[in-house]
Amino acid sequence: MDLHEALYTTRAMRRVKPDPVPMDVQARILDAAIRAPSGGNTQNWRFMMVDDPNIRARLGPLYRDCIDQLWQTVYKDRVESARANPDEPESKATNAMVSSVEHAADNFSDYPLFLFGFANGDRSGGSIFPSIWSAQLAARAEGVGSSLTTVLAYKGDAVPELLGVPVADGWKMAACVPMGYPTGRWGVAKRNPVHEVAYRNQWGNEIGFTADEPLWSPQD
Amino acid sequence: MDLHEALYTTRAMRRVKPDPVPMDVQARILDAAIRAPSGGNTQNWRFMMVDDPNIRARLGPLYRDCIDQLWQTVYKDRVESARANPDEPESKATNAMVSSVEHAADNFSDYPLFLFGFANGDRSGGSIFPSIWSAQLAARAEGVGSSLTTVLAYKGDAVPELLGVPVADGWKMAACVPMGYPTGRWGVAKRNPVHEVAYRNQWGNEIGFTADEPLWSPQD
Repeated sequence: MDLHEALYTTRAMRRVKPDPVPMDVQARILDAAIRAPSGGNTQNWRFMMVDDPNIRARLGPLYRDCIDQLWQTVYKDRVESARANPDEPESKATNAMVSSVEHAADNFSDYPLFLFGFANGDRSGGSIFPSIWSAQLAARAEGVGSSLTTVLAYKGDAVPELLGVPVADGWKMAACVPMGYPTGRWGVAKRNPVHEVAYRNQWGNEIGFTADEPLWSPQD
Repeated sequence: MDLHEALYTTRAMRRVKPDPVPMDVQARILDAAIRAPSGGNTQNWRFMMVDDPNIRARLGPLYRDCIDQLWQTVYKDRVESARANPDEPESKATNAMVSSVEHAADNFSDYPLFLFGFANGDRSGGSIFPSIWSAQLAARAEGVGSSLTTVLAYKGDAVPELLGVPVADGWKMAACVPMGYPTGRWGVAKRNPVHEVAYRNQWGNEIGFTADEPLWSPQD
């Protein structure tokens, strides 16, 4: 797969089929993940693939609670505003996101596979999230959809305890990535253009180029 | 460029030439970065390209101080142990890392370009580091080397103030990525194999496959 196709079309895929992800595919996903850089190349990371139906069944209600909490806290104003003004472009994006996340919350235990990432001594996240994102890009190349969530941290040590993580040794759950073969289609997700979110040399200075449309498209 | 070639060979490239990175290359790097996912697709990110020689000159001494602090704190034991036992394989890796980082610290102001990433409300780092890593992968496809550092945070608000970042509004510097055309060669970096760092369903359980050698190689 072309690098740019992966970078541009690996959007959150939360609607997936129950089909299992074969072991050789999982191996290629993880082997790509561990090629990512980490601070001082310490590789203070651990990964876990969860496919046990009993554990998946216990993850579902935990994620449901976290998402309910998310709507009532961080995203409260945004979700209420989108509900009140459904025709605004921003509202449509929010409502699509809410619908997608609600689907995940309603069906969390049905994901055939979860990738968890754990880090030790990585306060910024800069030593674990490149590897997680590499895993998601490598999954894309295998036709496996994924999405990244950090909300299970709302439950404190509940998930680490379920997975036997030695939290006393400093291991922290950084990310949970549900995976599966998507029911929908890959595509370039909408983003605020680069000239609106990038500066040159000083905050607020124009970056020096504009890109209203993506600089790569599936026809390239 | 092939996705796997990018994932496997984008190692930290700290030895670079002074040649500038053209604007169209910078645009493609940033445009790829903003396709990454962020929590709730909030895109609470800002990016900054720094190429102003005056600002670069001021970054150099700040980074030098941070690296000196790094050797005396987080990496103290590891560096001293590697110096005492230089023939151990682990020591060789550490000494190579130290040499590479020292090169960066001695020549920081000479990097022709720095990419900074800023985030707002992203406590885990999960909403900014995928985009930073995408930028590094996209840079790789352009032949531009990079490395990721978070140590400038040791200086508190010194760097954000230098760059005019509105820290009072919640914007935090997540990463600094020096960039440039490498003097060395791309290659697959050595990593602890996946079966040593990945588990299945419970911490410590075998993942179910082994991969002593990388599952992708430049010959593929």
